[in-house]
Amino acid sequence: EGSRPPLPPKDTYDQVCRDLASIYKKKIRPLETTYNFEGFHSAPLTDSDISAKPMVLLLGQYSTGKTTFIKHLIEGDYPGSHIGVEPTTDRFVAVMNGTTPRVIPGNAAAVSADLPFRGLDRFGQAFLSRFQVSQCPSPLLENMTLIDTPGILAGNKQRIERGYDFTKTIEWFAQRSDLILLFFDSHKLDISDEFKSSIYALKGQEEKIRVILNKSDMVDQQQLMRVYGALMWSLGKVIQTPEVMRVFLGSFWLHRPSNAFEDCRALLEAEQADLLKDLRDLPRNASIRKVNEIVKRARQAKVHAYIIGHLRKEMPTVFGKKSKQRELIKDLSSEFLKVQQLYSVPAGDFPSVAEFRKLLEAYKFENFAKIREPILATAEEALAVDLPRIMSQFHQQNNPLLELTQ
Amino acid sequence: EGSRPPLPPKDTYDQVCRDLASIYKKKIRPLETTYNFEGFHSAPLTDSDISAKPMVLLLGQYSTGKTTFIKHLIEGDYPGSHIGVEPTTDRFVAVMNGTTPRVIPGNAAAVSADLPFRGLDRFGQAFLSRFQVSQCPSPLLENMTLIDTPGILAGNKQRIERGYDFTKTIEWFAQRSDLILLFFDSHKLDISDEFKSSIYALKGQEEKIRVILNKSDMVDQQQLMRVYGALMWSLGKVIQTPEVMRVFLGSFWLHRPSNAFEDCRALLEAEQADLLKDLRDLPRNASIRKVNEIVKRARQAKVHAYIIGHLRKEMPTVFGKKSKQRELIKDLSSEFLKVQQLYSVPAGDFPSVAEFRKLLEAYKFENFAKIREPILATAEEALAVDLPRIMSQFHQQNNPLLELTQ
Ligand SMILES: Nc1ncnc2c1ncn2[C@@H]1O[C@H](COP(=O)(O)OP(=O)(O)OP(=O)(O)O)[C@@H](O)[C@H]1O
Ligand SMILES: Nc1ncnc2c1ncn2[C@@H]1O[C@H](COP(=O)(O)OP(=O)(O)OP(=O)(O)O)[C@@H](O)[C@H]1O
Ligand SMILES: [Mg+2]
Ligand SMILES: [Mg+2]
Repeated sequence: EGSRPPLPPKDTYDQVCRDLASIYKKKIRPLETTYNFEGFHSAPLTDSDISAKPMVLLLGQYSTGKTTFIKHLIEGDYPGSHIGVEPTTDRFVAVMNGTTPRVIPGNAAAVSADLPFRGLDRFGQAFLSRFQVSQCPSPLLENMTLIDTPGILAGNKQRIERGYDFTKTIEWFAQRSDLILLFFDSHKLDISDEFKSSIYALKGQEEKIRVILNKSDMVDQQQLMRVYGALMWSLGKVIQTPEVMRVFLGSFWLHRPSNAFEDCRALLEAEQADLLKDLRDLPRNASIRKVNEIVKRARQAKVHAYIIGHLRKEMPTVFGKKSKQRELIKDLSSEFLKVQQLYSVPAGDFPSVAEFRKLLEAYKFENFAKIREPILATAEEALAVDLPRIMSQFHQQNNPLLELTQ
Repeated sequence: EGSRPPLPPKDTYDQVCRDLASIYKKKIRPLETTYNFEGFHSAPLTDSDISAKPMVLLLGQYSTGKTTFIKHLIEGDYPGSHIGVEPTTDRFVAVMNGTTPRVIPGNAAAVSADLPFRGLDRFGQAFLSRFQVSQCPSPLLENMTLIDTPGILAGNKQRIERGYDFTKTIEWFAQRSDLILLFFDSHKLDISDEFKSSIYALKGQEEKIRVILNKSDMVDQQQLMRVYGALMWSLGKVIQTPEVMRVFLGSFWLHRPSNAFEDCRALLEAEQADLLKDLRDLPRNASIRKVNEIVKRARQAKVHAYIIGHLRKEMPTVFGKKSKQRELIKDLSSEFLKVQQLYSVPAGDFPSVAEFRKLLEAYKFENFAKIREPILATAEEALAVDLPRIMSQFHQQNNPLLELTQ
C-alpha cells in the first residue's frame, strides 16, 4: 500500500479525458494527418475513443458465473441478461450506464459516434448480430463499462456455432480494456484447450489480467485449496510471465445459495474486498494509462514525421525519382540512422525496418510532406508542456510516466 | 479412497522382503551372473538392498524446517541433529531405527553389508565425510528410514563449499527412495535456481514427490493463499508433468511458536493428517513397489539372457569369429528382431540398440554362455508362479502389477 503512488480524485477522470482530447486534436492529430501516420500505424483517435469509460472484459468458460457477477456488481439485472446452468449468454454485451434501461443492437452500436465500438464492424454481420449494448442506470457503471461475453465452448462447437472468429474479437476487446477478469469455477475446474488459446490471445495484456476463482463457497476449505492449487499450477504453465498472476478467491451472487460452505467466509470476504478496491481504483488508474497512451502516440507521431520528412528531403527535384526511392527503401536502416542522428531520436523509438519498408511501397516519396518546423514545434510543445501539466496532477513519486517524458 | 486397492497389513513388509530376497537369490541372480547382466545393467542385488526399509528423502532450501520435521515425527532429537536459522545441517544423515542412539560415520556406513548405502562410495571421500547414519529408537523408524539433507544453497556456494556433486548424490538417494518430500517455507518462499535444478534432478521420480509448504502458521490466511498460489504457479513451470503435484500445507514443530497464527489451524491439521497417513501407508505401498521392481528386473534379466545366448549361438565354431562379431554388432537391430520372434519377447522389453552396441564392444561373443533351458525355466517359474503368489496377498482389483505379469 505504502509504495503505491497517491492517485488523483476519481472525478478528474472525465476532466483528464477532455483535456487529452483537446491537446490531441490541436497539437498531435495535425502531425499525424500531415505525415500519413494512419497508413503506417493507426487511424486518428476520435473523441469517443479518448473519453471512453474504462472497460472491464469478463472471460471464462460457460456457467462460471460471469453474468451473475455483473448482476452482483450492479445489484440487479441488465436488459437482456440471462443466467443458467447451460451456456446462456449467447452474445457480447457491453453493459453501460444510461438513464433508462435499453438495448442498442450491434449494428447500430457499431456506427454510433458516441460509442467506442466503431472498430467492431470489421468482424462482420455474423458478429454484429451477436453484439449489443445494454444500458441501465447504476452508480458503478458511471465509472466503467463491463463487457459480458459468451462462455467459451469446446473446440469445434466454438468455431462452427459462432460463425465469427471468437479469439480475434476477444483480442479486440482485450486491447481496449483496462482490466480483464478471467473466470473459473471452483466447483468444476476444467481448463479446456479453447480456454488456453483464449489466454494465449491475451498475450502482451498480461498485466491487465485478474483471475477470479468463483463459487469458492461451493466446496469446503481443503477442496478449495486443491482447486486453487491446481488452477495456479495450470496457469503457471499457460502464462509465460514469471510474475504470479493475482487470483481472487470469491463467490459472487445476489442471493447466497443455501448449500454454501461457510468455513472460508472471512477469507472470501477479504478477497472480494480486494477485488472491489481494484475496480474502484480503475478510473484513476485508467486516466494515468490514458495519458501514457497519448504520450506514447505523440512520440510515435513525431518520429514518424521525421522519417517521412527526411525521405521527402532526400528525393531529387526533377529526374531519377523512381530509382532514388528504390535506393532509399533498400538502405532504409541507414536512413533511420541518419534520422536518429539529425534529430536526436532514441534508437528504440523507431518502427521495424522490415515492416516499414513494406508499407512504404504504397507511396510516392515526392508526394510526402516536407519537414515543417511549426507543426513539429506544436507537437513538441504538447510533449514538453501540456501533457506533463496533466500528469502533474498525479503526484509524481513512483510515477512510471516520468521516465517516458524525461 | 474407494478406488484405491486394499493394502496388505503393515507387518507383511518384512515377510515380503524376505520372500523376495529368497526368490531373487535362487531363481533370478543365477540368470544374471550366467549372462553378464551386471556389465549391461546393474550389479546383483544384496539382501540389504532388497530388505532395506522404505526410504523418505527430505529436500529443500536451508532453514525450511527439514530437521525440525524429523524431530516432530520421531518426537525428539536424533544423534547429531542441529537446528537453526542459518544453514545448519551440513551433511546427509540417514536417520534409522536402533536400540540405542549412535552415529555411524559415512565411511563405515558405506562398507557395512547390512546397510543399504554401499553404492555411496562412488561419490568419494569428500562426500563420505559429509554422510552419516544416525540411529535412535523410534516406533516410526521401525517402518522407514528418513534421509535428512543439507539445505540447498545458492549457486557457487553449493559447488565450491561442498566439494562433491550435490545434484548427483540427490539423484542417488531419490532413485532409492519411496517418497521425496520437498520443503518450502511459507514465511519466505523463494525458489532459487539451485532448487530448480535439484528438482530437475528428480526427473522420472515425479510420482514420489510430495511438497510440504511448511511454517504455514507463520502467515495469516490471505498471505498463505498468496504464497501457496505462487508456489503452485512456479512448480507448474518447473515440473513438466500435467498432473498437479500434491502440496501439503502444514507447520511441523515440537513446540508451537508463540507468534503462530490460528486462523487456518483446522486446515493445517487436516493437511498434516493426510501427510501422516501417506507416511503410515508407506511400508505397504513400498512392498508393492518392491515386488514390482523385482518383476521388472526378472523380465529384464530374461530378455538379456536371450540376447546374449542368441549372439553366442550365431558365432562360428572355428574361423571368422572377429568378423562375425563385427557383423552381429552392426546388424544388432535385426538380431534383436530375431530374438523377438524366436522367443516371443515383446518389442518394448529390449534395451536401446545404440547403448547395447557400445557395451558389447568390451566382450568376446565366443565366451558368452549358450542358451541353457534349465536356468531360464527357473527364472520363468519365478515370474509365472512365485512372484504372482506374493502379489496375490495384495488384493488384486486395480493392482497395477497385474499387467506386468500377464
Ligand atoms: N457464486 C455462485 N455460487 C453458486 N452458483 C453460482 C454462482 N454464480 C453463478 N452461479 C450459478 O451458475 C450458473 C451459471 O451462471 P451464469 O449464467 O452467471 O454464468 P455465465 O458465466 O454467465 O455463463 P455463460 O457463459 O453461459 O453466459 C447459474 O446457474 C448460476 O445461478
Ligand atoms: N513449523 C515451523 N514454524 C516456525 N519455525 C520453524 C518451523 N520449523 C522450523 N522452524 C525454525 O526454522 C529454522 C530452521 O529450522 P531447521 O534447522 O529445522 O531447518 P532445516 O531445513 O533443517 O535447515 P538446514 O537446511 O540449514 O539444515 C529454525 O530456527 C527452526 O526453529
Ligand atoms: Mg453469461
Ligand atoms: Mg537441517
